[in-house]
Amino acid sequence: VKNLSDIGERKAIQLISSMLSKADIAVGLGDDCAAIQIHNEYLLVTTDMISQKTHIPKHMTAFQIGWFVVAINLSDIAAKGGKPLGLVLSLGLPKQTSQDFLSQLIQGADKCASLFNTTIVGGDTKETSEITISGTAFGLVDKNKFLPRKGCLPGDVVVVSGPLGKAGAQYYLLQNELVDNKEHNALLQPIPRLTMGRFLSDQKCVTCCMDISDGLSSSLYQLSEINNVGFEIQQERIPLAEELTYLENNSEGMTILDIALHFGGDYELLFTVPRSCFESLRKEAEKQHLSLYKIGTVQSENGIFLIDGDKKAKLENKGYQHFQSSEL
Amino acid sequence: VKNLSDIGERKAIQLISSMLSKADIAVGLGDDCAAIQIHNEYLLVTTDMISQKTHIPKHMTAFQIGWFVVAINLSDIAAKGGKPLGLVLSLGLPKQTSQDFLSQLIQGADKCASLFNTTIVGGDTKETSEITISGTAFGLVDKNKFLPRKGCLPGDVVVVSGPLGKAGAQYYLLQNELVDNKEHNALLQPIPRLTMGRFLSDQKCVTCCMDISDGLSSSLYQLSEINNVGFEIQQERIPLAEELTYLENNSEGMTILDIALHFGGDYELLFTVPRSCFESLRKEAEKQHLSLYKIGTVQSENGIFLIDGDKKAKLENKGYQHFQSSEL
Repeated sequence: VKNLSDIGERKAIQLISSMLSKADIAVGLGDDCAAIQIHNEYLLVTTDMISQKTHIPKHMTAFQIGWFVVAINLSDIAAKGGKPLGLVLSLGLPKQTSQDFLSQLIQGADKCASLFNTTIVGGDTKETSEITISGTAFGLVDKNKFLPRKGCLPGDVVVVSGPLGKAGAQYYLLQNELVDNKEHNALLQPIPRLTMGRFLSDQKCVTCCMDISDGLSSSLYQLSEINNVGFEIQQERIPLAEELTYLENNSEGMTILDIALHFGGDYELLFTVPRSCFESLRKEAEKQHLSLYKIGTVQSENGIFLIDGDKKAKLENKGYQHFQSSEL
Repeated sequence: VKNLSDIGERKAIQLISSMLSKADIAVGLGDDCAAIQIHNEYLLVTTDMISQKTHIPKHMTAFQIGWFVVAINLSDIAAKGGKPLGLVLSLGLPKQTSQDFLSQLIQGADKCASLFNTTIVGGDTKETSEITISGTAFGLVDKNKFLPRKGCLPGDVVVVSGPLGKAGAQYYLLQNELVDNKEHNALLQPIPRLTMGRFLSDQKCVTCCMDISDGLSSSLYQLSEINNVGFEIQQERIPLAEELTYLENNSEGMTILDIALHFGGDYELLFTVPRSCFESLRKEAEKQHLSLYKIGTVQSENGIFLIDGDKKAKLENKGYQHFQSSEL
């Protein structure tokens, strides 16, 4: 008998999606975000759950837990080019949870939602033995502006929306007590790239897009599978978060590059555009004070490679997966 | 310092809703179901979480857990007169969960969704230490057909959509091993009254409505608070589930009436209509093979009373509340 620890989170989700009755209205089963047609728009719906044991680092305050669950759900709306309509939260909390903890958590959730011009419209509270919080965000996007996960072609340029490794650096800095936990910590209070997502959807040139929740390598492997393509990534083009330079030797043997490639938690957008569009897209982004980083190209042959000068090495998939690993 | 066990689930939800930034688009914060205007319709969104410790009776199979979480969410859509568009599920499962358990659970969820002409469009799977499942259902209702929780007036007739106590009877029958757990067990596989909800919303005469998830008494207390009214309920008019007659003395001292009044889990609709409309509504319902049961009237004075011939006694609020009680 196979257990979930044998198959891992992504296989579990594939199993689920293979078993469900297919609906005409559903776009993107197996995707992090569902899209349902209403008139000329898609209603986007996405859900993400976090629990104490596997997703809540010890340094995280109640405020940050609330922020986090809202941010990661809004990130899925951002990756589709959507405008959020609202969120609902399900809070599973132990009996002995203090009212103050609940208040702080709600403040964090509300702060994140309102900062991104949306709101928490409802929720549920239930007794559980460990803190388990599920958020569902929903939003709208014009049908012709929807950013899909599937659609890139060989030759397309691979782009990320910001420096990578920020959350990973914060993780090790916190671990080693080299920083205090402060507001807007990239690990504990990630920023959903909603403005970037809407900018990209308005430009109508993105061929596929997702948010990098579990690390760049993991996201590339997912896009490779969905699109049946490969990628070549230029190592020197990967934008490294400034925070990585503070790390010195406090990262448990992981190099700065490893953290940027595999750690996850940055919630930047990873997307592709036809080569002919990239320069004008980048210039348009600049006008709106948004930065884009070209990191590689889509290949017709499967396989994901890291190019470092003359060297070409396979990029391993070391991203975080639940069930199979149990540490953040 | 107050804990959630001191304040209970409903106060916790009130606390949350008092702290949230109010959005123009949100209707029904503090309600089980949010309504957000999209064009001439409301998008209904509702979320419900269940966890092993407090909501999953030992007799419940994986199939039934999946069914249950879909059914209780669809019930909230039914209570607004909505047509479901889809659901997302967040599954928090322990590492050692078998693949078979997951399959059965998804089959139950899918069966319930498809039986009510809707579909599961997405989800999330995470590792937790106990089974914790959150469902979010969403649907649409025309703005002028929305069934509100607030709006009843003194003199209105109080109606339920079916016999009460079915789930409670099943609970005690299962406890005492007087029945086998079989398909469509009312406790473990409740039926969301979607057809009834849409019928009521088409008739445009309902002044307030909710689903009876935690028992009739609990629901009446909630409507009383929201509407600032009282209720007189005619004891002999309460429709008793046939299953209650099989109980004999196996209900831990609870009478058949107690179970019908307080146990919950039936997911029938409780609603009010102006007295002048009730007879025509009942006849129209009958044509569509739907039964309505008039059980009392709305009063201007607060207080909820049970009328038994000449006797008038206060109806206590003994419905199930999480955090304060930990048994189903």
